[in-house]
Amino acid sequence: MSTDPFDELLESLRCLPGVGKRSAQRMALQLLERDRAGGRRLSQALGQAMDLIRRCESCRNFTVEPTCKICRSTDRDESILCVVESPADVLAIEAATGFQGRYFVLLGRLSPLDGIGPDELGLSDLASRLEKEPIEEMIIATNTTVEGEATAHYLRQMANREGVRVSRLAQGVPLGGELEHTDRSTLAHAFGSRQMMP
Amino acid sequence: MSTDPFDELLESLRCLPGVGKRSAQRMALQLLERDRAGGRRLSQALGQAMDLIRRCESCRNFTVEPTCKICRSTDRDESILCVVESPADVLAIEAATGFQGRYFVLLGRLSPLDGIGPDELGLSDLASRLEKEPIEEMIIATNTTVEGEATAHYLRQMANREGVRVSRLAQGVPLGGELEHTDRSTLAHAFGSRQMMP
Repeated sequence: MSTDPFDELLESLRCLPGVGKRSAQRMALQLLERDRAGGRRLSQALGQAMDLIRRCESCRNFTVEPTCKICRSTDRDESILCVVESPADVLAIEAATGFQGRYFVLLGRLSPLDGIGPDELGLSDLASRLEKEPIEEMIIATNTTVEGEATAHYLRQMANREGVRVSRLAQGVPLGGELEHTDRSTLAHAFGSRQMMP
Repeated sequence: MSTDPFDELLESLRCLPGVGKRSAQRMALQLLERDRAGGRRLSQALGQAMDLIRRCESCRNFTVEPTCKICRSTDRDESILCVVESPADVLAIEAATGFQGRYFVLLGRLSPLDGIGPDELGLSDLASRLEKEPIEEMIIATNTTVEGEATAHYLRQMANREGVRVSRLAQGVPLGGELEHTDRSTLAHAFGSRQMMP
């Protein structure tokens, strides 16, 4: 920890993703010159969030309570479980879709080289939920990266063992995208999986 | 203040310049998922900086002590004073040049429409320094914007009244710049102010 509060602020701002030396300086000066109240509020919010926010006992998403809002809600459909890699994915799905089921957040993806196996992703918790809860369909919404696909494969086998139906987000050309600018593997996949029109 | 610590963190991260909804989310998740220690350190550094850092009584730059390191130093040349708009300019000049004089930080520029006049920039403090201290040269290093130029003009008159020599940073084509990509007014100025080679 450097002794000068200004240097220490510059240093510690750099833990934020995408913040280098120059932006740290811009941020520090902006707060000191024009927005001390904002800086104090951020300091408090950060301290509070780091101390209070923990993982939901049921879905592993971030929450302050033992279980998160979505898991506590009695309005959600218990029969559909959507498995995602990160809390950001939950936010994205909640914002974009009308999904009314529950989630399971892996907080990562299978990546044996990085030492991330089924234990690190809490897959035994997921297995016991599949067993005990009245889940009929598991939507796999991991990323479409190599590791995301490997994770999806593993999840599918788990669900099959418990006799739970499995679905996967549709893959193809993005809406509003131009074919010309779509990458080759997406285009090849979309072409191969073309759907008959009624 | 929103009640949920996560929402409050997202909200308050947006006081940082250049941070919108998406980057706030990315920052919050990164800290919660992977760097709680960094988040706590940033919280502390922010709180401390907002509370402890104030303006140097002599040059108006940010400091923890009543006067800043540069003003306290006995190694600096008292006869040259460099006037800049912001603390960032001091950092830039210190990093790029071997300047060994002292500074005066306006913390702004003359901008009557925004209600920023000589009082807001502490120009009476500057005038009394010009009068009392053995200052022989005042380097005007305000920005080369319209307001920076107006401020420079005002500063020059002040220095003239006190019989202090005035200089201004050289203006022209940037080093390593291509003429083709230099803006028209810079090029016109550089052309008009061309220097004879010995």
